Amino acid sequence: VEVISSHPLDRSRLRVVLVRARNPNNIGAVARAMHDFGFTDLRLVNDYPVPLEAARSAIDASAVLQASSVAQTLAEAVAGCTLVVGTTAVGERDIQHTLLSLSEAAPAIQSEAARPDSQGRVALLFGSEKTGLSNDELSHCDLLLTIPMARHEGLRHPSMNLGQAVAVCLWELIRPGPPIEPTTRQPTDAAEIERVNDLLYEVLEATEYTRRHGARSDPAEIRRLVHRMSLGTLDAQVWLGILRQILWKIRRP
Amino acid sequence: VEVISSHPLDRSRLRVVLVRARNPNNIGAVARAMHDFGFTDLRLVNDYPVPLEAARSAIDASAVLQASSVAQTLAEAVAGCTLVVGTTAVGERDIQHTLLSLSEAAPAIQSEAARPDSQGRVALLFGSEKTGLSNDELSHCDLLLTIPMARHEGLRHPSMNLGQAVAVCLWELIRPGPPIEPTTRQPTDAAEIERVNDLLYEVLEATEYTRRHGARSDPAEIRRLVHRMSLGTLDAQVWLGILRQILWKIRRP
Repeated sequence: VEVISSHPLDRSRLRVVLVRARNPNNIGAVARAMHDFGFTDLRLVNDYPVPLEAARSAIDASAVLQASSVAQTLAEAVAGCTLVVGTTAVGERDIQHTLLSLSEAAPAIQSEAARPDSQGRVALLFGSEKTGLSNDELSHCDLLLTIPMARHEGLRHPSMNLGQAVAVCLWELIRPGPPIEPTTRQPTDAAEIERVNDLLYEVLEATEYTRRHGARSDPAEIRRLVHRMSLGTLDAQVWLGILRQILWKIRRP
Repeated sequence: VEVISSHPLDRSRLRVVLVRARNPNNIGAVARAMHDFGFTDLRLVNDYPVPLEAARSAIDASAVLQASSVAQTLAEAVAGCTLVVGTTAVGERDIQHTLLSLSEAAPAIQSEAARPDSQGRVALLFGSEKTGLSNDELSHCDLLLTIPMARHEGLRHPSMNLGQAVAVCLWELIRPGPPIEPTTRQPTDAAEIERVNDLLYEVLEATEYTRRHGARSDPAEIRRLVHRMSLGTLDAQVWLGILRQILWKIRRP
């Protein structure tokens, strides 16, 4: 019987982000699955006080919950990550991202976490129990992952229980499999991409693009556009320079 | 993205057996995971009324729960199965069985379910939330499976939440992987093995073996002995004949 502790995935480089999770039992179950499989980095995104006390009753998961932190915004929760992966039930909404099944996505996540010099950090996002991740929240993601499920006639599209979905995803990442190959894609911190996004939006407003093309100016739409650029760190710096220059030119008296 | 419905595992040939599960929420969570992954055969072993009404509130899982049945004994719940797999947390007790990790056990389960002429049926057993499967319950198993977990210093040995453990096991069975090879091992119904076991125990009592070798006559010990025989159906018939003959000889006036 293999021992999980010897698995090559560096589990400190994967962050689980729960966005608008409501049920303390679910939060506790997520923490317990993380504890069982050796993960420690849990972030909660909620704009109201999270009932963490109730969740802390989860058996054995107290260490994970005590180390967890609450962020006000998703951008804050994924800052520092070089790959942001959203989980979604297929068919829930219009998908404008690369959508991979769990077992297709696992190698990409493992590769990112295996990046040399500890530069790769992955955020794995789970939406609220009722609605999943919103379009705006999905726009922060570099790729989307779905757990393939059985379809049942006459029933609404299936979605998994939150604690079970997290357990299944984490297991797929640490189950024995082919060797992990570090990625060669250039790393860029999600916070850097968000800065490009913010500055681009400022430009779109300053140039009255948003006024004239309202339909195409939805912030989530623009953020997806930026994420599709697959920006490396250097390119992000170049783009920030270009956008600042544009703003300077426009705002000149 | 692959569709789970096309997975080659015949999910009607896997039975999930919950032994002494107490918490209706857990039973509901198990049913929901089965529903999500396309499994339908759920048996509960309890010697008291199961709070199924409460469990039936589980979203989307009502079809699985409605089709589920309650057995008084484990032998009854696994009758008809040709491979009985127990799940256990390592270190909980003395293991006298073949113990495989989840990903090692999955091919064995898939092979059994792929047996030609639909002869292969697998029972996957999960024990109670607090104590897992007892030694007596483990003695009904042909092999044991454990989900490898992280060890944490100073904490008791980890065990997973029941709903999460079932979800992770079922996912491992239907995730895309190497092709499934039907087993060539001879199939024997668990009920047949139980008949050999019962008759052997009768012989041990009739011959006063149990009286003279009390320490070695624990029923679970004897059942494990019988399971280690890896009886094919024909051999089981032969053994039943031998044991009946012995009893006849002993009881002759």
